[in-house]
Amino acid sequence: MPWNDSLQGFFSPSTITVIGASVKNHWFGNLVHYCRRLGFQGNIYPVNPGAAEVCGLPAVSSIADLPEGLIDFAAVIVRSSLVLETVRALADRNIKNVLLVSSGFSEVEGDGERLQGELVALCRERGVRLMGPNCLGFLNVARGTGAFVGGSVEGEIIPGDIGIVGQSGATSEVLATKMLKKGLGISLFISSGNEAVISFEDCLEYMIGHGETRVVAGFIEGFRDGRRLKEIALEAARRRIPIVVLKVGRSEKGIQAARSHTGAIAGNEMVTGAFLRQYGIIRVETIEELVETAGILSRCPLPAGDGLAVCTLSGGLAGLYADLCASLGIRLPDLSPDSIVALKGALPPFARPGNPLDVTGSGFTTGMERVLRILLEDGNTDIIATLSFPPGPGTEEMLSAHNEYILSQLPSAGKPVIALTFREVSEYARKFYHDRGLYYIEHTRDGFKAIGNLIEYARFQRRFAKRIAGAESS
Amino acid sequence: MPWNDSLQGFFSPSTITVIGASVKNHWFGNLVHYCRRLGFQGNIYPVNPGAAEVCGLPAVSSIADLPEGLIDFAAVIVRSSLVLETVRALADRNIKNVLLVSSGFSEVEGDGERLQGELVALCRERGVRLMGPNCLGFLNVARGTGAFVGGSVEGEIIPGDIGIVGQSGATSEVLATKMLKKGLGISLFISSGNEAVISFEDCLEYMIGHGETRVVAGFIEGFRDGRRLKEIALEAARRRIPIVVLKVGRSEKGIQAARSHTGAIAGNEMVTGAFLRQYGIIRVETIEELVETAGILSRCPLPAGDGLAVCTLSGGLAGLYADLCASLGIRLPDLSPDSIVALKGALPPFARPGNPLDVTGSGFTTGMERVLRILLEDGNTDIIATLSFPPGPGTEEMLSAHNEYILSQLPSAGKPVIALTFREVSEYARKFYHDRGLYYIEHTRDGFKAIGNLIEYARFQRRFAKRIAGAESS
Repeated sequence: MPWNDSLQGFFSPSTITVIGASVKNHWFGNLVHYCRRLGFQGNIYPVNPGAAEVCGLPAVSSIADLPEGLIDFAAVIVRSSLVLETVRALADRNIKNVLLVSSGFSEVEGDGERLQGELVALCRERGVRLMGPNCLGFLNVARGTGAFVGGSVEGEIIPGDIGIVGQSGATSEVLATKMLKKGLGISLFISSGNEAVISFEDCLEYMIGHGETRVVAGFIEGFRDGRRLKEIALEAARRRIPIVVLKVGRSEKGIQAARSHTGAIAGNEMVTGAFLRQYGIIRVETIEELVETAGILSRCPLPAGDGLAVCTLSGGLAGLYADLCASLGIRLPDLSPDSIVALKGALPPFARPGNPLDVTGSGFTTGMERVLRILLEDGNTDIIATLSFPPGPGTEEMLSAHNEYILSQLPSAGKPVIALTFREVSEYARKFYHDRGLYYIEHTRDGFKAIGNLIEYARFQRRFAKRIAGAESS
Repeated sequence: MPWNDSLQGFFSPSTITVIGASVKNHWFGNLVHYCRRLGFQGNIYPVNPGAAEVCGLPAVSSIADLPEGLIDFAAVIVRSSLVLETVRALADRNIKNVLLVSSGFSEVEGDGERLQGELVALCRERGVRLMGPNCLGFLNVARGTGAFVGGSVEGEIIPGDIGIVGQSGATSEVLATKMLKKGLGISLFISSGNEAVISFEDCLEYMIGHGETRVVAGFIEGFRDGRRLKEIALEAARRRIPIVVLKVGRSEKGIQAARSHTGAIAGNEMVTGAFLRQYGIIRVETIEELVETAGILSRCPLPAGDGLAVCTLSGGLAGLYADLCASLGIRLPDLSPDSIVALKGALPPFARPGNPLDVTGSGFTTGMERVLRILLEDGNTDIIATLSFPPGPGTEEMLSAHNEYILSQLPSAGKPVIALTFREVSEYARKFYHDRGLYYIEHTRDGFKAIGNLIEYARFQRRFAKRIAGAESS
């Protein structure tokens, strides 16, 4: 892999030039805006032959006029017919980290495909590390730098340990926004586009290796290199970094859409599915499931087994959760006889201990610490999902006390403890859960699917550990 | 059915007494609070033997001391052992509309079941219309009255045409809250509890008949009377009022939970499923799907066929939607050759017209009116789901123009037009969509499931109309 050694530099620009910067397109303004949101400390040099300044920043009229030896990164947003000469001029000035935003390449049959071929040859010849074309760039949240031209990543940019890489720009923006709205933190966010040079696999390998990412979330239309993906997946498994992907192309129309978009080959669905399962890559069906699965993996330890205990205050919800777990293949083990006896002592006389556990409305007003401890100490349970009242500035004391108790249990628990929120989750509550590293379920089905994926990944890791141990002893 | 004629009075109290009103439990305070939120114009008389006032309202020391001939409704929140004498005393004062909140009846084996038996006999003997026990009451939003003791229905109470009835109090509160947060309006919301006297079927029949409800959403643990349910479902079909239910008991643990909760018999799953399908009752799996399905049915006309056209600005999203439709069994028909030609004229040269339609990012900046008209006029399409930018006070003009165009098409379209939101939906946007009666998709899978349910219900209505026509002509 020729580029990966130097991707560290690519993803950490300190001084950026933007070729084709203009007030007429949104891209330059967006780039400056995101740099500010990231706390970027470096300088930005717009290049525009006809303007003295762009968006308040002094402009340079050509690449040749850029200051010597200062600039380590260029974003290119000129029209496709000018791209080759631009990349050549940049290489002449020894600027070899290039983000190519422009479209009109392999996603356009004929001329566009030919142009992309010439671009690849040029980059190879001159050693240019190029991201794109037809992409939005990246936000390196962990390092406070980036070059991102999209306009739709909303919400506070929260630093964290989830890496995101998406082949579709718009979809990636939706994904990143939902991640942030859920209060989840991001290490590095990449929109990789047509991947003429830097591929999905390159981004993945970089994320697995660079130490700031603990979970990878990917939106994929097609893989470029199966053999390499396998090696990267094995390394990720060794480092216990889960990879979660939403891959388009489960249907005929989905495959068509992927092909005419970034030019990726969606591949044979059956083969892809089996391949992903074998290498522990978790596959999800929607953006929301991708967010929830990355979220639970980012915030919870891996469970030792697959038994889930659910605790709620309503028989209706208990029934609903039971049905949902059955349909998603999540096991709700019977509680041990000791736990049943202990729960009878802890709950109102009319409560009937079981799993799911309905402590009844009055049960929730008192003694929940004891109930939660019983569930945690039960040898049959591996994960606990328990009702939580999303806190707010005006939350009643009892409810807050319960939340605090859940939290205090986390470090000693070993078992994942998940908050099943009752009532709506406010911005205040999202921040509360985020600050305490607590995974919470807001949308029932997505949340339980995430639990199922957590269980599945833990199972894969147990199998993988055995395989490694077997290989070492033989 | 002995009660239904008089349920109109039951659900429209003008003067309410509350037996067992006390500052010590939350119920009375909640009831007063919801009456205020509903704009209730009548008086509330708390009955408490030891207090001159409760929550600022002058109290009466016993039922015997209540004013004569003024009170048409009583809420009872005394402990279960005092319930029989309380109901008797109310009947003596000719107060025969009773909401019984207290628990400790059929949901408690043995003593509780016996007590409920005695309660039913007493109500029959004295002609008492009783809701509960073990319930939270109701909000009659359409009439600005109600008696509701729960504490967790959040958000602005929006009047509308969706009726909600739930056997589980807490679950019903979650359901109503999610409905309101989505910006959907409610006609009547009922938490029916153990249904000792007034049953789910009674509530359903009332909603179908009273003219203010156009869609019913139910959370059910068990039906009481299959024969009657069938008659009500047929009447609902005649009036084109869809009934959507979330029924617990698809799993063994779900059935157990339902049984130990409100004492309902979940019934044989296979039989239930076939029965619901036959009578056009739509079944969903989660609260979120229930909200979305009721929402789409409340806001969209029934489509004439089952062909969905999807329009978006991203190839990635197009692929995702295609896969989702395939997995949910939603048909994406090919567009007609005329439409393809017309779209080629309307879109940028590199766009490739199809269904899903990716107009590309630049396509969305101009000419979307023309594109949407082409999709609407295509004979192969029956429903249009098109990307919408949720409006905000600061929304760019182009995006607003597009939203306004979608809206202007609705009355003349005949075909349902659905907004597929890109970016997060703010309170502002929810209100915007609500005020214009536009159904919008926020959560992808739930939204497409709702489209599938809309198609399925329209199909049922076509079959039903044929059956009626056949019966009339023979």
